[in-house]
Amino acid sequence: MSAAHGGLRVDGARLRRSLEAMAEIGATPGGGMHRLTLSEGDRRARDVLVSWLDELGAMVTVDEMGAIFGRRRGRDDSLPPVITGSHLDTQPRGGRFDGVLGVMSGLEVLRTLRDHDVDTLRPLELVDWTNEEGSRFAPAMLASGVWAGALDRDWAWARTDADGFRFGDELARIGYRGPAPCERRPFHAYYELHIEQGPRLEREGMTIGVPRGIVCLHWYDIYLDGVANQVGPTPMDGRSDALVAAAEMVLAVRELPDEMGGGMVATVGELNVHPNSRNVVPGAAHFTVDIRSWDDVLALRAWERLEGEFRAIAARRRCAVRAEETWRVQHNEFAPALVARVRETAARLGYPALDMESGAGHDASYMATVGPAAMVFVPSVGGRSHVEVEETSWEDCEAGANVLLQCVLASADEPDGNTTAG
Amino acid sequence: MSAAHGGLRVDGARLRRSLEAMAEIGATPGGGMHRLTLSEGDRRARDVLVSWLDELGAMVTVDEMGAIFGRRRGRDDSLPPVITGSHLDTQPRGGRFDGVLGVMSGLEVLRTLRDHDVDTLRPLELVDWTNEEGSRFAPAMLASGVWAGALDRDWAWARTDADGFRFGDELARIGYRGPAPCERRPFHAYYELHIEQGPRLEREGMTIGVPRGIVCLHWYDIYLDGVANQVGPTPMDGRSDALVAAAEMVLAVRELPDEMGGGMVATVGELNVHPNSRNVVPGAAHFTVDIRSWDDVLALRAWERLEGEFRAIAARRRCAVRAEETWRVQHNEFAPALVARVRETAARLGYPALDMESGAGHDASYMATVGPAAMVFVPSVGGRSHVEVEETSWEDCEAGANVLLQCVLASADEPDGNTTAG
Repeated sequence: MSAAHGGLRVDGARLRRSLEAMAEIGATPGGGMHRLTLSEGDRRARDVLVSWLDELGAMVTVDEMGAIFGRRRGRDDSLPPVITGSHLDTQPRGGRFDGVLGVMSGLEVLRTLRDHDVDTLRPLELVDWTNEEGSRFAPAMLASGVWAGALDRDWAWARTDADGFRFGDELARIGYRGPAPCERRPFHAYYELHIEQGPRLEREGMTIGVPRGIVCLHWYDIYLDGVANQVGPTPMDGRSDALVAAAEMVLAVRELPDEMGGGMVATVGELNVHPNSRNVVPGAAHFTVDIRSWDDVLALRAWERLEGEFRAIAARRRCAVRAEETWRVQHNEFAPALVARVRETAARLGYPALDMESGAGHDASYMATVGPAAMVFVPSVGGRSHVEVEETSWEDCEAGANVLLQCVLASADEPDGNTTAG
Repeated sequence: MSAAHGGLRVDGARLRRSLEAMAEIGATPGGGMHRLTLSEGDRRARDVLVSWLDELGAMVTVDEMGAIFGRRRGRDDSLPPVITGSHLDTQPRGGRFDGVLGVMSGLEVLRTLRDHDVDTLRPLELVDWTNEEGSRFAPAMLASGVWAGALDRDWAWARTDADGFRFGDELARIGYRGPAPCERRPFHAYYELHIEQGPRLEREGMTIGVPRGIVCLHWYDIYLDGVANQVGPTPMDGRSDALVAAAEMVLAVRELPDEMGGGMVATVGELNVHPNSRNVVPGAAHFTVDIRSWDDVLALRAWERLEGEFRAIAARRRCAVRAEETWRVQHNEFAPALVARVRETAARLGYPALDMESGAGHDASYMATVGPAAMVFVPSVGGRSHVEVEETSWEDCEAGANVLLQCVLASADEPDGNTTAG
């Protein structure tokens, strides 16, 4: 890295002002944010970002998926850039830090370099990815998925929200269906600063999380058929109660990580009962299983075990059970050299840091499939996110932005071909 | 009873034809019935019933709750009548026997008496009660409830269905808001033939069920609050998963009757999870508990025990729990003399019979609060009801109607004041 700028730091007060300004666009009475992708709030947040990039003299490009890139020239502008960013969209009644922290910190990096007249060998790009959350248009990480070539642009445009509005039409309506192709270009490094969305950093008193990658994600859908019947006249011993069977299965899922070890998490987030009437023995039930682990094989073994338990429970409870494998994504490793850089930078700046994995997907997931990528995590108060009370201290935001600044600087001054320097 | 007519039997083939004719009005492709109360189907079924009563020369009265009474004169027409009947409305996609069997059997009793020129001391009345099912307009047993003075007529008229239609308006629309007051009158006996809606008679090879009354019914609503959170980054050990807590409680409800004994049933029929999203740890849950027993005190002790278990589970699962007592109805005993008559009649006619309780409410529940009432049950194939495959054999229908005929005859020839003769 460029030792000359090792002492450079972001302006924490300005970063806070940027975050607070963004937090006014789509604010909820409960202190959170409701800025769904391609909503009027998203449009206004984008307009503000573009105006701030214009002030910096960055070259702004909007691509056909609405991703906004703000580019700062490098001394050799032909070299692949260093990219940093995240997303400005939020969950319904979500929080003030998820996503926007990464975009505002990237902006703060650019502003800091401008303030100190620092130029870099490589160009730098700040990106705001469209529809990371996926809560209005499924799936999540839509723009970074198209950019990385994992998703098809026309398919993405055709996604519809609950009211039947098409993603592509809404993108045009808010004026952000840009002319640039949404497709991968060579990049030297991708960094994304994000809140942890879990409790580990806070619990262990750490400031910086250093994820080595993103855990695997296995989704299943379980369907149970019992026999619906009048509650009163149906004795207990002859029942085929689909909810009782489902309840035993929910508890089996809860016990699974303890049995398997390896930091696995397993969750039933959704359960639907039919006919769901207080005086009818439940005749059918559907529920989901979400299994995540760094160890893909362990996750598969866990499912095998669970499936056997489900069959035994269903037989004992006189129900039929059917399991569907809905989605499987393997674990995703970040570039070891960039991960090491995040770790070493945190140490050099005096921030206590924790090696960890990301339990959630991010735009960095797709970026890691096509180039060197890494993330920087900062603590979530109480481990809460996707809720209005989502919180990260201003000090931790500043610390994360400083780590981001130094990592971006280090990568930006590397000559070509030297993408593995620590 | 009048020994002279002890050999009288109904015409089983005619009873079957009546049931089959009624089963055409509101038939579903799945072989069941969809004849919601005050629907066009209900109107047509009522018109047919009235035409059949007219053929018999019965005096037809429609009251202000739409209950249809068909009266056959007695030798002393000033004496309180013997009433029999049930209801013509069905559950959504329900079956061909629930309710209509009691009305058609009562009609068959009147037809049999006409065929054999049998007159009775007391007048006889056949009744079709409006809205027994309660699936379109809550609550169930609406007309018999008003008739017995337990429910208010104007309140009943103001009940609305899911589309906002008022019960009173719909009653007028189909032409069955009659002029007669819906209020209790003295009656000498009320008999209701009904399918069992449970599996006991079939399991034990019995033809006739002799319910001594209707079990108590206690309804509770349980609300659980945990902490919603992102599935991936939230370790298992710090979670407050409302669904995991609810699942343990569902199993506690399932075990309760085994622990308490006394033929109790306990059921969770409805469970709702929030936000019910596959990648969010459930933050809240609501479920219902339905406890039924002949022994009211045992049912209360069961709830006490359950509440303690719920508190312990909630504490262990780091959730807050709140329980509401939604509805409590005490057990309801039929008139012992009439119950004995049903039992003895079945024995005399050579039908194997089983003493039991009714686990479900019926119009006879309200009638039993204001006069001597009893019921006759016949087997439900597979114990199924409120479903399209609901089934009772024609032989069992005929057997039930014969028991009804002989019980009605015996009560109808009792002189005044002698309501307790067996």
